[in-house]
Amino acid sequence: MSELGRWPISCEIPVQWGEMDALNHVNHTVFIRWMETARMHYFIACGFTDLFDSEGIGPILAGLKVDYNAPVGFPDTVTVHTTVTRIGNASFEMGYRITSSAKGDEDVATGTVSGVVFDYNSDSSTPMPDSLRASILQLEATGSV
Amino acid sequence: MSELGRWPISCEIPVQWGEMDALNHVNHTVFIRWMETARMHYFIACGFTDLFDSEGIGPILAGLKVDYNAPVGFPDTVTVHTTVTRIGNASFEMGYRITSSAKGDEDVATGTVSGVVFDYNSDSSTPMPDSLRASILQLEATGSV
Amino acid sequence: MSELGRWPISCEIPVQWGEMDALNHVNHTVFIRWMETARMHYFIACGFTDLFDSEGIGPILAGLKVDYNAPVGFPDTVTVHTTVTRIGNASFEMGYRITSSAKGDEDVATGTVSGVVFDYNSDSSTPMPDSLRASILQLEATGSV
Amino acid sequence: MSELGRWPISCEIPVQWGEMDALNHVNHTVFIRWMETARMHYFIACGFTDLFDSEGIGPILAGLKVDYNAPVGFPDTVTVHTTVTRIGNASFEMGYRITSSAKGDEDVATGTVSGVVFDYNSDSSTPMPDSLRASILQLEATGSV
Repeated sequence: MSELGRWPISCEIPVQWGEMDALNHVNHTVFIRWMETARMHYFIACGFTDLFDSEGIGPILAGLKVDYNAPVGFPDTVTVHTTVTRIGNASFEMGYRITSSAKGDEDVATGTVSGVVFDYNSDSSTPMPDSLRASILQLEATGSV
Repeated sequence: MSELGRWPISCEIPVQWGEMDALNHVNHTVFIRWMETARMHYFIACGFTDLFDSEGIGPILAGLKVDYNAPVGFPDTVTVHTTVTRIGNASFEMGYRITSSAKGDEDVATGTVSGVVFDYNSDSSTPMPDSLRASILQLEATGSV
Repeated sequence: MSELGRWPISCEIPVQWGEMDALNHVNHTVFIRWMETARMHYFIACGFTDLFDSEGIGPILAGLKVDYNAPVGFPDTVTVHTTVTRIGNASFEMGYRITSSAKGDEDVATGTVSGVVFDYNSDSSTPMPDSLRASILQLEATGSV
Repeated sequence: MSELGRWPISCEIPVQWGEMDALNHVNHTVFIRWMETARMHYFIACGFTDLFDSEGIGPILAGLKVDYNAPVGFPDTVTVHTTVTRIGNASFEMGYRITSSAKGDEDVATGTVSGVVFDYNSDSSTPMPDSLRASILQLEATGSV
């Protein structure tokens, strides 16, 4: 049985002043941009980015769900943790936790996204290649590939 | 029985070139910014914005869920439709549909958000005032207040 | 003598709520995004976008200068006017005026950018093709190509 | 004679994937957001932020000028350096240098902004308070206040 959901990838991102909106807190869309950045670091680590560059097979975002727990201000540094939580035939799900340094590493938001493996050559979804699946499982199990 | 879910508020927003990301489509966070703009137009229309200015009672975003159906490019103009779909004691839910002019008004994304009515004076959630509830019901039923 | 500086291209853009920052006004970077959108509409109109798609010759932004005259809030609609003010051998300059509907079409910002004509095949600047130069001159003189 | 232009404040900012635009480089407006973040760190360090909170006297951005030297991609980390280069009666100028880690700390952009000292109580510009002037001069001379 594969083991998933171990938060193998995380990145620290300092808040930028202009990310705050008129309510004096970081705008809620920025949390989702942070999750995207962590996701791209994950895709680099597991080889999904290379697969897209070499064979035109890449991820497409199908949906997302975010729960906001606490506001974030400036200055602060957040850490975004991400993990793959499910691998289907041609789909996958990822989870996210964002913690705030100024709030003692409290969770300020959590989220999930669902994605599809897409072949840009044939313009259709495609089964996840076995090599990518193996890399993700190894990354989840050991923290590196 | 109150009637909800009638899409009384919508706004047209032209795509800006810089909203596209490295995959040549409008970045997925931009759809959520568009939904926020429609939400603020709704809050102005139903008097929630005035209530915040006069009494310090305003909305807080608790969570959101978005499904992406089709990519959007530049140039294009999207229309964001929004409606209140549920009113609880101190909470509410809203729905969103985004359509693309370039795609023949096809739905490119749908979404929901959950919000809480918050009293910024006491720093805690508060029941939705009856006057606001009545305005929302009228807006949903008739398209205006 | 060519005639330049006639503001042949303009576009209307509604302000989005999330474009305001913690000072309750539209963040100053957003004005520059609006200018970029108008610039891209200009590049489509004069054929620069097609030239990039067909021959790999496109514009590169070298510098910009912006003067901020008045703040912009939400809701409002701005109009961005743009024009080519100078054509060099392998470079060009454009001007921008942004007006606000809520302020009676007052200028809220003005700006200029300098750009270079770049051949992405040879990875170097290149003289502006005569056909593009003619299209720009016609667009400036008549408002259409 | 006061000494200015010593780059006393700098901050490191990792590039986010979604900051790239359709040309596969970080969008040019993002450089200006980075400069703003460094500027706010400077304002915190010299006490301008406290002055705004306590007395309603704060900075207003009047204009900016940016020169772009090299593109930035993802992943990368930039460092933004800032300094006050001139203090007038009720105005000031600041300089910026942005360097890229992936490019061996090459300058990728430089910029200047001009600002005005503004009294939000009287809604007009005001001479820079002596205490703020002294803090800026000390920060420029010694790197701390």
